[in-house]
Amino acid sequence: MKGPALPSSAPLLVTMGDAVGIGPETIVHAFRQGELQGAVVVGDPAVLRRAGAPLTAVIEQPQDLPAVPPGCLPVLAVPGLSGIPGLAGLPGGLAGLPWGHVDARCGAAAARCIEAAVRWVLAGQGAAIVTAPVHKEALAAAGVPYPGHTEMLQALAAAPGQRPPAVRMMLANDELKVVLVTIHQSLRSAIDALSFDAVLHTLQITHAAAAAWQARPPRIAVAGLNPHAGEGGLFGREEIDFIQPAVQAARAQGIDAHGPYAPDTVFMRARRGEFDVVVAMTHDHGLIPVKYLGVEQGVNVTLGLPFVRTSPDHGTAFDIAGRGQASPASLVAALRMARQLAGTKAKPL
Amino acid sequence: MKGPALPSSAPLLVTMGDAVGIGPETIVHAFRQGELQGAVVVGDPAVLRRAGAPLTAVIEQPQDLPAVPPGCLPVLAVPGLSGIPGLAGLPGGLAGLPWGHVDARCGAAAARCIEAAVRWVLAGQGAAIVTAPVHKEALAAAGVPYPGHTEMLQALAAAPGQRPPAVRMMLANDELKVVLVTIHQSLRSAIDALSFDAVLHTLQITHAAAAAWQARPPRIAVAGLNPHAGEGGLFGREEIDFIQPAVQAARAQGIDAHGPYAPDTVFMRARRGEFDVVVAMTHDHGLIPVKYLGVEQGVNVTLGLPFVRTSPDHGTAFDIAGRGQASPASLVAALRMARQLAGTKAKPL
Repeated sequence: MKGPALPSSAPLLVTMGDAVGIGPETIVHAFRQGELQGAVVVGDPAVLRRAGAPLTAVIEQPQDLPAVPPGCLPVLAVPGLSGIPGLAGLPGGLAGLPWGHVDARCGAAAARCIEAAVRWVLAGQGAAIVTAPVHKEALAAAGVPYPGHTEMLQALAAAPGQRPPAVRMMLANDELKVVLVTIHQSLRSAIDALSFDAVLHTLQITHAAAAAWQARPPRIAVAGLNPHAGEGGLFGREEIDFIQPAVQAARAQGIDAHGPYAPDTVFMRARRGEFDVVVAMTHDHGLIPVKYLGVEQGVNVTLGLPFVRTSPDHGTAFDIAGRGQASPASLVAALRMARQLAGTKAKPL
Repeated sequence: MKGPALPSSAPLLVTMGDAVGIGPETIVHAFRQGELQGAVVVGDPAVLRRAGAPLTAVIEQPQDLPAVPPGCLPVLAVPGLSGIPGLAGLPGGLAGLPWGHVDARCGAAAARCIEAAVRWVLAGQGAAIVTAPVHKEALAAAGVPYPGHTEMLQALAAAPGQRPPAVRMMLANDELKVVLVTIHQSLRSAIDALSFDAVLHTLQITHAAAAAWQARPPRIAVAGLNPHAGEGGLFGREEIDFIQPAVQAARAQGIDAHGPYAPDTVFMRARRGEFDVVVAMTHDHGLIPVKYLGVEQGVNVTLGLPFVRTSPDHGTAFDIAGRGQASPASLVAALRMARQLAGTKAKPL
């Protein structure tokens, strides 16, 4: 499935990620497959040429994209990229660094690309951001004060003096969209972290985000925490104590939320079209069904930001970087999903 | 997919379940579809005729099945069925009771059918048992001292004076087999119930059961409990503290166990053929992927009994019983799975 063409002239902005990971080569693969239509890479032209790009055309701002000749990979110039400490004397610059090794210069460059992309998209010059993978250790080595994309994007999206927006992770493929209330913590601590507020905020964020990508209010199903959604309290009380009340509170706010339903059948019901999106209490309740049919199809979407952001569902894969073995499938899925989510109503989230 | 023909002459034994639930009509549907080949119903002929059976042929023992004329639904006579208290004066017997109401007489009859089926299968006169659904309240009203099939089968399978065998629930379809360490309890209490012994016993039961249905030792994947299987202790310690040690202990006993793996990708890997069966720590980690592609395909298999037992993955559905609306799909899947599991090595588990 190809997503619909972007109704606005603003291109997708694709950040190159870590220069010595598989990000650049998956971008070049996707370009060769015709999947970078209406998109521009935010990165270093030399890195992309080393990763296999035929010709690169550097543009100064997103709206110059139509001037790029066919066959050239469009690259948006990133201010300050060449000024990164330790790059000046290096032959080839970033493209002279060995594949697959943690390097502070790559972490710094990846961060500059993300910052530039956010500036452009907040200025209305980008339709959405698609991020190729960064390496947490490289970011840390460069002194970047965020462990990963999500935290960095939250901080960059905040208005001066304001708290970063609350975000939720959505995993999506062509069949299923799942938003997670909790993510990277032990299952036991995830249960402890669940609350009326956590569920209600997730429903609010999901509803607001979906309003941008589809015309009618989204039908949101809530998966329970316990087997059979608690079986009336027999198998756990979280559904009775706060999940059901949070669904009711959301409905009172005009959110088309339903449930909580038994976790083992609600995803199948959504896949069949009964719901537009499922809210899951835990990382694996949500990710098992999204990934079951093939991990490449899973696209990571950050909800709650003032713009659409998608990313492939894999890391920098340093062990195979630079060998041409990396599949662009997940990046392609992320590009298509970004088009789909940003395109429907021709405005960012 | 049709299962292979039974290599032994022993038929599948199909218990009719609750007489006023959807069990009888799904059996008749399956018969009309040709899915009762090599199977005999353990039940009441009048109940099956009311449920739509064209002609019934009552046989006294399973090996009489070949004598049943084509077009007749074979029914194995159940001793004592007509002697159930409160049936003698009732016109039509069990078949005179209204559809869809809890009745002690139906509970008693269902229990007699199960007892008879177990006697025959333990005597080597049945290849496997496929159970149509019973109603817990009807069993209780009849004074049956077991809440459901599984507990009753465990007790009936125990040798005199011995403890009932430990069992585990397996859910299976054509693509995926999942065995559950914990089932019907809150997620929080399921985490508390997990232990080295619980995981190791599950691996032992799974290995022993699979030895009966496939020639080579089964490749068993163990799904972790926590996101990313704990990410080296960062997202929970259960994998380090006892799941990984249980896998190692199983391997030392010659069991081809692997993992623990990240829950969100291990089921996809098994579906692609990397493993024969996945052991899941919780009800929903295991059941979400089995049910994702369609709930009718999920067959419930009890591992640990001295025979193969499968059942459809639905209940008595009193609300629609007798209306001809019930789908036989899950029963058909249970019949096929029983053939497949019992047939490969021509002997019960």
